[in-house]
Parts: sequence; C-alpha cells; structure tokens
Amino acid sequence: MSNPYGPNPGDYLSNVRSFQLIESTLREGEQFANAFFSTEKKIEIAKALDDFGVDYIELTSPVASEQSRLDCEAICKLGLKAKILTHIRCHMDDARVAVETGVDGVDVVIGTSSFLREYSHGKDMSYITNSAVEVIEFVKSKGIEIRFSSEDSFRSDIVDLLNIYRTVDKIGVNRVGIADTVGCANPRQVYELVKTLKSVVSCDIECHFHNDTGCAIANAYTALEAGAKLIDVSVLGIGERNGITPLGGLMARMIAADREYVLGKYKLHKLRDLENLVADAVQVNVPFNNPITGFCAFTHKAGIHAKAILANPSTYEILNPADFGLTRYIHFANRLTGWNAIKSRVDQLNLNLTDDQCKEVTAKIKLMGDIRPLNIDDVDSIIKDFHADLKPSEDKSEQSEEPEVKKQKV
Amino acid sequence: MSNPYGPNPGDYLSNVRSFQLIESTLREGEQFANAFFSTEKKIEIAKALDDFGVDYIELTSPVASEQSRLDCEAICKLGLKAKILTHIRCHMDDARVAVETGVDGVDVVIGTSSFLREYSHGKDMSYITNSAVEVIEFVKSKGIEIRFSSEDSFRSDIVDLLNIYRTVDKIGVNRVGIADTVGCANPRQVYELVKTLKSVVSCDIECHFHNDTGCAIANAYTALEAGAKLIDVSVLGIGERNGITPLGGLMARMIAADREYVLGKYKLHKLRDLENLVADAVQVNVPFNNPITGFCAFTHKAGIHAKAILANPSTYEILNPADFGLTRYIHFANRLTGWNAIKSRVDQLNLNLTDDQCKEVTAKIKLMGDIRPLNIDDVDSIIKDFHADLKPSEDKSEQSEEPEVKKQKV
Repeated sequence: MSNPYGPNPGDYLSNVRSFQLIESTLREGEQFANAFFSTEKKIEIAKALDDFGVDYIELTSPVASEQSRLDCEAICKLGLKAKILTHIRCHMDDARVAVETGVDGVDVVIGTSSFLREYSHGKDMSYITNSAVEVIEFVKSKGIEIRFSSEDSFRSDIVDLLNIYRTVDKIGVNRVGIADTVGCANPRQVYELVKTLKSVVSCDIECHFHNDTGCAIANAYTALEAGAKLIDVSVLGIGERNGITPLGGLMARMIAADREYVLGKYKLHKLRDLENLVADAVQVNVPFNNPITGFCAFTHKAGIHAKAILANPSTYEILNPADFGLTRYIHFANRLTGWNAIKSRVDQLNLNLTDDQCKEVTAKIKLMGDIRPLNIDDVDSIIKDFHADLKPSEDKSEQSEEPEVKKQKV
Repeated sequence: MSNPYGPNPGDYLSNVRSFQLIESTLREGEQFANAFFSTEKKIEIAKALDDFGVDYIELTSPVASEQSRLDCEAICKLGLKAKILTHIRCHMDDARVAVETGVDGVDVVIGTSSFLREYSHGKDMSYITNSAVEVIEFVKSKGIEIRFSSEDSFRSDIVDLLNIYRTVDKIGVNRVGIADTVGCANPRQVYELVKTLKSVVSCDIECHFHNDTGCAIANAYTALEAGAKLIDVSVLGIGERNGITPLGGLMARMIAADREYVLGKYKLHKLRDLENLVADAVQVNVPFNNPITGFCAFTHKAGIHAKAILANPSTYEILNPADFGLTRYIHFANRLTGWNAIKSRVDQLNLNLTDDQCKEVTAKIKLMGDIRPLNIDDVDSIIKDFHADLKPSEDKSEQSEEPEVKKQKV
C-alpha cells in the first residue's frame, strides 16, 4: 500500500524522496543571539553533525574574524564525510580568503530585494550580476563547489531574480539558492517560486527559510515538492532572530513522507543528543513542544486517545518514537483519563480487576483528579486500595454495590 | 501598493482577511501533559482570552469529570464577549449534558479514519452518520450552535468524508470541521481537501491542526487560503503530544498577510502576558524560539543585518515589534558585529568618532569577541578606552597610525 503522506504523484520534479541537508548551525546558528562557539565546541558539533549524516556543513565566513578563519581551516582538516562549505558575501575580497581555507565549496549570497539594494549594499542588478559572475568563475577556477543565492528572494523582483539565476546557471554554478531572509513566505508562494525557477535553471536549487511566521518547516517541505533539492537547517533552528528550519522538525516532516529514505540516511536516534549538545552550547532549553524531542511529543493523555493508542499506536501517532530511540507514554494520572488507560495500568501492576471494576476505580481517580494534580503514585495507591478492599469477601458483585462508601474513603 | 504577502488574488474563496479563532487552551490545552487548571485559573485564562479578542472559547467536555461540568457552567456565566463552546463525543449521552451547561455551541467530533473506526469506537460510517444526525438535530432544537467534525480527517476515506459532511450540512449544521489529529498533513494536501469540501458544503469550515511534523501554522494559513473560516488554536499551542497551531504563531503569520484586520480585531500587545499566564499555569518556559515572544525574535546580530536594520527595519523584519508592545535589539557585542552597529553604539554613548575610527574599534571588538563571549559592558569599555586614548593629542590621523599598539592594550 502506498503511503498517503508521501510525495504527491502529481509533483514529477519532487525531491521529497531524494533531498539533502545543508547544516548551518556553525554559520546561521552562530548568528543566534546566544551563540558563542569556541573552536573545541565547533569541532565537537561538526563531528556530531557528520555522524548524524548531514550532507553539507556550512561555516561562518572566514572574513568575519581571524578566529573564524582559523576555525574554518581546522574543520576542513577533520576529514569528515560531509562536505564543508563557507558562506560569504558576493565579493572577490571574501572569495579570495574563502578558497584558501580548504573548504569543499563556497556559498555566496547577495541581497536582491529593493530593501536590501537601497539600505544594505546600495548596488543595482547589473553590478550584482557582474560581481556574481566574477566570484563564481574565480571559485570554479579553484575546483571547488559554488552556490549563488539571492537574499530576501520573496521580496525581490521576479524578473531580476530569474535573469540573474539564468546567468549564473549558464556559467556553471553548482547550486542556486532561494532565501526567505525575513520569514515572510507562505507554502504556496514557495511552491510557485521554486517551480518557476526550476523551469529556468538546470542546476540544483537550495532553499533557506526563516521562521518568523512559523512556516519554515512547511515551506521547506513544499520547496522539495516543487523540485528544490537541498534545505538549509540548523539544530533547534538556531539563527538570526527566532531562526530557520530546524533539523529535528524537518526530520519529523520528512520521515512522515518517506520513512525508508530518512532512516537509511540519517542516524535519527542521535537527534536528541545532538540537540542537547547545541542547546547546552548556546544555553537554551529544548522547547517543551519541540517536534520529536519535546518532553511530551509522545505523551497521550485524553481518555479516548489513550484507549486507541493502547489498541494500535498508529491511531494517534504519525511518528514512531522507536525510530528516534524514544518511547511513548500514556498519561493516565489526570481527570481526563479513561478506563482503558487505567485497565492497562492495573495490568502493569499485576492486579486482577474486571472491566466494571476498572470503570469504578477510574471514577474514583477522576474524582481525585478534579481536586488536584495527580502523580502516578496517587493513581497506584487508589488502585491498590480499591483492589485490597475487594480481597476479604472475594465477592466482586457485592463490592460493586458499595460505590458511595468507597468514594468517601478516597 | 498591495501587500505581496497578503491573500493570493487567485484564491477567490480565501478567508485570510476574515478568519476567526476558536481558542482551545481550556479544551485541547487541558490535554497537554502538564495541564491541571483549577476553576480559578480557568476563569482567569478565559477572561484573558476574551480580552485578547478571540471569537470562541472551547472548553473540555462536561462529561470528562464532574468538576469539568461545573467549570463549564461557571465560565458560561461570566458574560464574556467570546462565544463559549464545549467539545463532546458524537453521542446523545454527552449532548444531553452539554446543552444544559449554558454554552453557546457544541463541537462534536467522531473518528472517521479506518484506524479509529477499528481501534477506537468500532462503528461503521452509517452508524456514524446516524449518530451525527441525531446529535445535530437535538442540539439545534435547543437553539445553540453545532459543529460536526471528523477526527483524523486526512487518513479518512474522501468519499466517506464528503458524504457525511454533505449530510450534516443539509440538516443545517453551523460548521463542519477538518482535523489533522495526528499532525501528518502538509500544506498542499490541506489546500486540496479544504477546497474540495468547500465545493460540497455551504456552511463554514473549521480546521484543527496538530503540530507533530511542524506544519500546524502553515497548514492553518493554507486552509484559510482555500476557504476555511475558523482555526483552532491554543496559547503556545499546548495540547495532546506537542500540541496544535499556537495562537501567537498564527498571529505572526496572519499579521504578515493582513496587518489591518489582525490589529483591528486582536489585542496583540497582550499576547506576551497571555502566554506567560498559560506558561506559568502549566509550568513550562516560553520556547526560546517562539514566534514574536521568544527572547530573540527581534534580535539582529550579524554585521550586515545590523547595518541594514539601522538604516530601515523592514530590511530584515516582516513583523514590527511595536505591534506587540515589544522592541527590537541590535546585538553588537560579538565577533560577527560590523562597524555600522558599533557606530550606532558610539552615537548612543554620545562619543564622537569618525567612520575610520569606528572601523578600527570594531576590529578590536572582533578580536576580543574571538577570545570569549562579550557583554555590552565589554564593548562599551573598549569603545571608551579607544576614545579616551584619542583625546590627548586630538590628532586623529596620528592615532590611527598606531593600531598594533592599541590592539595589544585590549
């Protein structure tokens, strides 16, 4: 049976089953407010990303500071499987430094929106195009990969964009990049722009999405549907402002679409350690509601959810926690609990109660749950007391005639 | 000039400019692992939601527990502007209790996916349809609103879905609901399903999106584009597992699309207090990367970002922090800083340095930023020392010939 959450068969250019990751924790992530990575920490993160299986690791520009340049050289010498990139302005001064660091490729970017052309670099499109051609030909002459990206692509003139992308594609750029630098794009805009660009260039398309309006994961997925091949991510999404497409969240989205590809390529059971490594390095907590690794991502609470999950986890789970080395949890110690969840707990406690008795003890638990937050010990005590009270007579029908008395005891 | 992030003119059924919110912190949110709301806390939250301007407030089923019923009655008596709903199973036992609580409307839900039909309630589609009709006609007879929703809609048979939606629409249901109960849907699937449903029913369409694969905000936006009218949200997205579309994140998405509508309808400057209220109640921290209210949502760090933001904030912001009672922050105390950001700090300190001198002191700051994390005091000290050293001779050209000496002093 085909997977209904897999690629749309109508998307014949889709890369949902063949996407690659450009991991930018050590570039975009360094632009996160709290980030200060020592050389040792950068190397530890780079090795962890490589072990996880990312395709590319992107590093801060070597012209940002002297140590940035030295760190770039150090990471290039690690001999990682992932290709190492550095990210520079579209300028020969930067390019000359970048190609000497030992990187496998250079990502160049320049603002093409009217906002950035007016308030950032002040250059017109023909100047931008000439700079791009010069930098690309120089980097290519050194035998390494080169990507050209516009910045703030969704607020750039579409004709300007297509012109420059076609020009750089013709001179043999390896990838062109679309960047939603301010986080304004929505999924259907992304689909349209990527699809249009796909009809203009023959090289791969890379996408970079900021998360200001909460769409960075969905935009990445939709870009792949339209034919983009590579997505920029960072661990926990750290980056400028509230960041970009998070590695973990994108893994959640992609595994729902093609479990086999994702499991075959990335070591998902290392995701939690990777997130903890970066969270510690930048002194933040993993968000309570983080996809996959949030503390409650596989916790089921309402009675009807718990009942169905106990019968078949696929009823209320699109992700299998075991794929990530995690486990699900049925939260039964609360007033929304149902008797199926309590029956499951009774079984775990190796007690023997009929369905009716389970319903009766569930009513007691809900009564207590109305009064205050419950923990597992509270529930276990109520169940054990109930069970103990049954013992003397061994007559279950008699017991069930005294619910009022029992309720008062609780 | 029209807003390029506004509704797509091709979406003639779009409700992006006329959407409504069904706020479910007190229903879906109560299913969050950590949630235990006392009566007093529920009332405090309900009043805050009403003040914020949500259209509907949805409450836990009155049959979940006795206190749940009493709390529902208490909130109905508050006389809020928002309409009060309660959420029940598609069952007459539940409906009879619900209509006596004083609610303005009842939201019924039943699992229609093969998963839920097999492992949850075990009923077939004709049984489901008959139950739905009975409950809807009963609730309507009491003169209150009624919504019928399928559960796990994206894993339900499309023909089953359209059949039951058409049936309930014909008997006058107020709204039909689509629910992505497991968080598997992606934006283009949402667009297609909502658009198809819109062609079958004449009533309003409500959508409910879980966030397991990180698409809950984007799916909500895309549903509105396709003609859905109402979106279920909760504060910080709290709910089963990692939750649903968050109120704040959706506000970020919607204000980018139609600022005037959103500002005219919702008190956005109360968002932070509302999130803090709920975060405290369920004992979580607001995620570091939360849209709008995350601590760094309006912090700009990289040199080229800071430069452009200082010239015009729209260069790197799609959201205006002032709309939410917040302020932007230029992070200049780090090795990625640029001389424009430092020049701005020099001006704030009421010092007088030329551009060349600002570049020189920026180099010193970057050198120190390579060694360790900097704070604002560090940067200010470097600037002030640099400035003090200029004073004696008043000869700026002479000073700038001694950069090596100065660097050693830092």
